[in-house]
Amino acid sequence: MNDTSATPAPRLLDTISGPADVKALAPAQLPQLAQEIRDTLIAVTAKNGGHVGPNLGVVELTIALHRTFTTPTDQFVFDVAHQGYVHKLLTGRGGNFFAKLRQTDGASGFLYRAESAHDAFGAGHAGTALSAALGMATARDLRGTDEHVVAVCGDAAFTCGVTLEALNNVVSSTKRLIVILNDNEWSIAKNVGAISNYLNRISTSQTYNKLHHDVEAFFKSFPAGVEMNRAYTKWKRETKDFFVESSLFEKFGLRYLGPVDGHDFNALQKNLEFAKHCDVPVLIHVLTKKGKGLEAAVNSPEKFHGASPYDPETGLSKKPAPGTPPNYQDVFGQALTRFAKADRNVLGITGAMPSGTGLSHLAAEVPGQFFDVGIAEEHAVLFAAGLATKGFRPVCAIYSTFLQRAYDQVIHDVALQNLPVTFCMDRAGLSPNDGPTHHGLFDISYLRCVPNVTIMQPANEDELVDMLHTSLNLGGPAFIRYPRGAGMGVKIKAEPAKLPIGQAEVLRQGSNIMLWALGAMVPEALKLAERLETEENLSVGVVNARFVKPLDRTLLLSHAACIPLIVTLEDHTVTGGFGSAVLEVLQEASCTTAVERIGWPDKFVEHGSSVEILRAAHGLSPDHIYRRIVDRWHNLHSEHIAADV
Amino acid sequence: MNDTSATPAPRLLDTISGPADVKALAPAQLPQLAQEIRDTLIAVTAKNGGHVGPNLGVVELTIALHRTFTTPTDQFVFDVAHQGYVHKLLTGRGGNFFAKLRQTDGASGFLYRAESAHDAFGAGHAGTALSAALGMATARDLRGTDEHVVAVCGDAAFTCGVTLEALNNVVSSTKRLIVILNDNEWSIAKNVGAISNYLNRISTSQTYNKLHHDVEAFFKSFPAGVEMNRAYTKWKRETKDFFVESSLFEKFGLRYLGPVDGHDFNALQKNLEFAKHCDVPVLIHVLTKKGKGLEAAVNSPEKFHGASPYDPETGLSKKPAPGTPPNYQDVFGQALTRFAKADRNVLGITGAMPSGTGLSHLAAEVPGQFFDVGIAEEHAVLFAAGLATKGFRPVCAIYSTFLQRAYDQVIHDVALQNLPVTFCMDRAGLSPNDGPTHHGLFDISYLRCVPNVTIMQPANEDELVDMLHTSLNLGGPAFIRYPRGAGMGVKIKAEPAKLPIGQAEVLRQGSNIMLWALGAMVPEALKLAERLETEENLSVGVVNARFVKPLDRTLLLSHAACIPLIVTLEDHTVTGGFGSAVLEVLQEASCTTAVERIGWPDKFVEHGSSVEILRAAHGLSPDHIYRRIVDRWHNLHSEHIAADV
Repeated sequence: MNDTSATPAPRLLDTISGPADVKALAPAQLPQLAQEIRDTLIAVTAKNGGHVGPNLGVVELTIALHRTFTTPTDQFVFDVAHQGYVHKLLTGRGGNFFAKLRQTDGASGFLYRAESAHDAFGAGHAGTALSAALGMATARDLRGTDEHVVAVCGDAAFTCGVTLEALNNVVSSTKRLIVILNDNEWSIAKNVGAISNYLNRISTSQTYNKLHHDVEAFFKSFPAGVEMNRAYTKWKRETKDFFVESSLFEKFGLRYLGPVDGHDFNALQKNLEFAKHCDVPVLIHVLTKKGKGLEAAVNSPEKFHGASPYDPETGLSKKPAPGTPPNYQDVFGQALTRFAKADRNVLGITGAMPSGTGLSHLAAEVPGQFFDVGIAEEHAVLFAAGLATKGFRPVCAIYSTFLQRAYDQVIHDVALQNLPVTFCMDRAGLSPNDGPTHHGLFDISYLRCVPNVTIMQPANEDELVDMLHTSLNLGGPAFIRYPRGAGMGVKIKAEPAKLPIGQAEVLRQGSNIMLWALGAMVPEALKLAERLETEENLSVGVVNARFVKPLDRTLLLSHAACIPLIVTLEDHTVTGGFGSAVLEVLQEASCTTAVERIGWPDKFVEHGSSVEILRAAHGLSPDHIYRRIVDRWHNLHSEHIAADV
Repeated sequence: MNDTSATPAPRLLDTISGPADVKALAPAQLPQLAQEIRDTLIAVTAKNGGHVGPNLGVVELTIALHRTFTTPTDQFVFDVAHQGYVHKLLTGRGGNFFAKLRQTDGASGFLYRAESAHDAFGAGHAGTALSAALGMATARDLRGTDEHVVAVCGDAAFTCGVTLEALNNVVSSTKRLIVILNDNEWSIAKNVGAISNYLNRISTSQTYNKLHHDVEAFFKSFPAGVEMNRAYTKWKRETKDFFVESSLFEKFGLRYLGPVDGHDFNALQKNLEFAKHCDVPVLIHVLTKKGKGLEAAVNSPEKFHGASPYDPETGLSKKPAPGTPPNYQDVFGQALTRFAKADRNVLGITGAMPSGTGLSHLAAEVPGQFFDVGIAEEHAVLFAAGLATKGFRPVCAIYSTFLQRAYDQVIHDVALQNLPVTFCMDRAGLSPNDGPTHHGLFDISYLRCVPNVTIMQPANEDELVDMLHTSLNLGGPAFIRYPRGAGMGVKIKAEPAKLPIGQAEVLRQGSNIMLWALGAMVPEALKLAERLETEENLSVGVVNARFVKPLDRTLLLSHAACIPLIVTLEDHTVTGGFGSAVLEVLQEASCTTAVERIGWPDKFVEHGSSVEILRAAHGLSPDHIYRRIVDRWHNLHSEHIAADV
C-alpha cells in the first residue's frame, strides 16, 4: 500500500475494528484517538441526543481498559451501561451503526448481550454491575479458568442498595475481581449521600494516599527514631488491622487503589496492570470529568447527562417546534410546586431525577419540601412511607420502569399499611430512543394485583393536575402514570378538580362499539371513532377510563348490556393490563359481551426512532388498530352463531 | 389493699398494662420481669410456634427501651418486627391475646400499626426499619417537635440493600436518629458477608473501643512524652479525620457507641440515655444472645429462629402425625441436590434461608454448588444472572413474598436477557400463622406480564421434581411456585419427567363443567368434581393446568368450544392471576364461553390458625366454592337468554 496521494490520512478511529487494533496503537497515538472519539460522540449525540456527558468522561478509561484486557475473553460489566458508547466504538460498532445511535436499526444507547459478544452483561438501570460481575467471577472460579472480570461502576452505583449488597458479598465470593469506581461526582443530578461525601474527601485529601500506601514509611520517618519504631510496633499490634482498614472499601475486603487521574493513560494502565496481578479483589478509584471535551457539558452536567439533540457550539438544545405543548413532567412539577406552597404537608421525593421528573421546579421554589435521596428507589418509597405515618403527603416521582426497583416497598410498606403516598410514574408507555430497559409497559399489571391501591392515567396534562390533586386528598396509596414528552396542549384549569374515585368519563356516545381508552390512547380512540363512523358507518363511542383501579364497573356494565363490542386501548402490555381488568369485571358480572383488547404484545420492545415507528412494528399503528376493530366487528355475527351452537 | 392472704404474689408481668408500668418498676425488679417474659415467650411459642430465638435475645433491650423512651410519643421501628413479642407484652398485648400468638384472633407474629398505637411502623420483611425511621425523623424535624425515633435493627438488616441505601442518606436527612444494632451474629441462618465479619471483629477486639473512644489519652500515654505529643499532633493534622472515622458507621456519619452487653440493664440504659442527648445520629452496637434462656435455642439458633411448636424441655419439635408426607421444601432440596450431583453446572442460591427453602440439603451434600448471600434478594438474583451468562444453571430459592424484593432484577436482568435462571418460590399461597407480610398471593400477577418467562405450579411433590428438571433443561427464566408445608404423599418417580412446555393434563373428563385447577387447587378440584357429579348429577372434568405461562391454549379452546362453563381455581389473588390468563386466552380467540374464577379476593389476608380457617373467612371453603359453581351453572341458562336479547 504505497499510495502516497494527497488524500487526508484516515482517522485512527476508522482503523479500529476491534480491541486488537486498540492494543496495536503506539502510546503517542492515544490522545489523537481520544480526540476523534470525542468528536464522534459530540457529533452523533448533538444530532440524536444521548448520554454524552458520561461518555465524554470515560474516553481514556475505556481505551486503557481495552489496552489492558482482552474482551470478549475478559469481561467488562458497565454499570447502567449509558457510558458504553466508547466501548461500542472500540468493538466494531462505529460508523453508520453508531451514527444511528438510539435510532431504528442503529446502536442501542445501552449495552446488550444481543448486540455484541463484547457486551458481557446488558443494563439500563443503575447498580447492577458489581453483583453481576461477582456472579461471573464466581463462575470463572468454579470453572477454574483465568479470565478477568471488570466491573465499571459510577460513583452513583454506590447509592443503590443492590451494589452495596454485592459489596458485602465480594470477599466471600471471590479473590479476583476488579472494580473500577468511575467517580465524576454525579449520578444524574449531583450525587448525594454519605458515600459521595466520603469519596469527595478522599479525592481531595492529599495526605490520604500517602498515609494509606506508605503508612510504615511515614511512621518510621518520625524523628524519634528507634523509640518511635517501638511505639509504632506496639500500637500496630494493639490496634490490629483497624488502621490499615481505614478506607471504606477495605472494610469490605477490597484493596483500594487511587485516586487515579482518569484522563491520564499512563496512570490508568499502570493501575489496571497492577490490579490484574492482585490476589484480592481490587477497587480502583478513578477521577473523571463528566462531559470532558464539551464545554457546555462540563458546565451543565445534569442537562448533558442524557441530552436531547443540541447545538455542539452553544450547547443549546434544539428548540421544540413552535406551539409544542409543555411536557407532562413540567406540568407535574409546576402543579406539585403549587400544591406544596399551599400545603406544607405536601412533599416531593426523587431518586436522582429532579430534572427528568420535573421535581426541579419544586427544588427551586420550595426546597424545604423537596428530597433527592440518590438512585435509591427502595429507600425513596420507604422514606415516603415513614413521612406519611406522621401526616405528610409525600409524592414519589419515579419513572414507571424504575418503580419496579421498589416493588416490595410498594406492597409491604405502603399498600399493606394503606399509607397516603402518591406515585407519579413518568415514562409510562414507551421511551423510544432508550428501549426495553426504559419502556414503562408493565406497571398496570404489577400494581393492579396489590390491594388498597388506586391507579389512574390522565388523558391530558390538565387531567394530570386533577389526578395529582385527587391523590393528595385520598386516604391511601395512589399511582398516576403518564407518558414521556409533550402533553396534548390543553389549558390547565385555574382550580384543579377533585375527580370522583373510580369514575370514567364518556367522551362520545355510540351504539355499535364502545372504545374504552386509557390515558394516552384517548386521543387515538377519538380519531378511530371518527374514522369508523365515516368509513364503516358504525356508531362508536369513546370512554376516557381515567381509573384502572377501581374501574368504573357501573358504566362498563351498562355499556356491556347494550353495546355488542367493547374495545380497550392502553399504552401498556396486554398481559394483565387495563384490558384484562375490563375482562375481569365483565366475568365477575357473568357478562359475555365481546371484548377486543389493544395494547403492546407480550415481548420486550426494542428501541427505535419514534413511538410511531415502534407502534407500527408491533401492529399498533392507527391503521392496524382500525383494521382489527373492523375485522372483529364483522366477525361478531358469526361468533354469536357459533356460541349458540 | 392490705390483703395478706397466702395466694402467691402476682407475676410482675401481669401488672404491666403499658410502658408507664415498666418505668415504675424498681431496677431490682427488672431481672424478675425479664425472667417472667422469657417464661411466657417459651410457654407460648412452644405451643404456637414462632420467632422464639430473636425474642429471647431482646428481653433486656426492649425493657430498657421502654424505660428510657415513651411510646407512642417516641417511636420504635423494629426491623422485620419478628423480635417484637417483648414489645407486645409491655404494651398491653399480653394475657390471652398473646397466648393466641399467630392464631386466629390472637396477636400477630409481627408488628402492625393496626394492632397497636405503640407499633409505629409495621414489618415482616427485613431491612425496612432504618429507612422508615429516617422518614419519621425527617417528619419530626419538619414539624419542629422533639420526640425520639429509634430504629431497632438486627445485624442482618445490614445485609439488605435498602438498609444501606438508608444508611447513605442518614446524615443528609436528620441530626437526630437513634439506631440500635442488635447484633446476635445471625440473620436466620448464620450471618454472611463483610459487614458481619466486621462487626464480629469489633465485638471481639478489646482494643478497638479503647482506641476509638480514648484515642488521645492512648497516644499521650506513650513513653516518649513531649516528643510523642508533637509527633501525634503533626500526624493528626495531616491525617485529618480519617483516623477518628475508623468505624464503618462513622464513615456514614453516625456516632458509634459500643459494643454494649445487651443483657446488662445498666449498660443499656446508660447508653440509651446518652444517645437521647446526642446532636448527631447515633448507632448503639448491642451484643445479644439469640435464644438466651432456652438452652435448645442457644444451641440451635437457626432452628429456633422461627420454630414450629416444640418441647421446651428437650427442644424437640412436635413430630408430624404418622404418615404425614414430606414438605415441599425438603422434596425440592433433595431433588436439587440430586441434580447438582449429576451436573456441576447446577447451583443453588438462597438469601439467608437454607432451612426454610430446603437448600440446606444441598449445602450439606454439595457445598461447592451452594451459595448463601444473606438477606439480599436483589443481589441473589443478579448474582444468578451473572452465573447464568457463563453456562451455569442457577436455582434461586426465594419465597414468593420475598421475590417481590428482586422484581426489577427479574425483569431487567434475567428476563430481558432471557437467561436460564430457575426461581423456586416456596410459600406460594398462604403462610397462615405469619399473615399478610408472608402470604404469597401476588406472584402470578407480577410475573405473568414479564416477557420470556415460564411459570409453573405442580399439583404434587413428584410434579415439583419434574418441573425443576424441566426448568433446568429450558433455555430461559423459569418460575415454579408451590405451597408451604406437606406435599400430597405421592411417590417420587425414580427418573423425573421432562414436561412438554405449556401443556396441561386432563385428570378427569366432563361435559358440563371443566375445572381448570392450578397446583394446590388440583386435589380440591377433584373432590369438587366428585361431589358435583354425585349431588348435582353434573358431568365435571378436571384439568391440572401445570403452566400459567405459556397456558395450554389448545386444550383450553377445545374445552371452551364444547363445554358451557370453565371454572378456574388458584391459590392466588383473582386480580390478574391464573384465571385472568384464562380470560385473556378466550378473549384473544373471540370466545365468549362462560368462566368462573375462584381465588383470593382483592384484599390483604390476615394471619390465622390455619389455611382452612382463612379460606372459610374469605369465601373459599370447599362448601363456598361448591355453592358458587352450582349457582353459576344454574344461572347459565338465563345468562344465555340475556345475551341473545
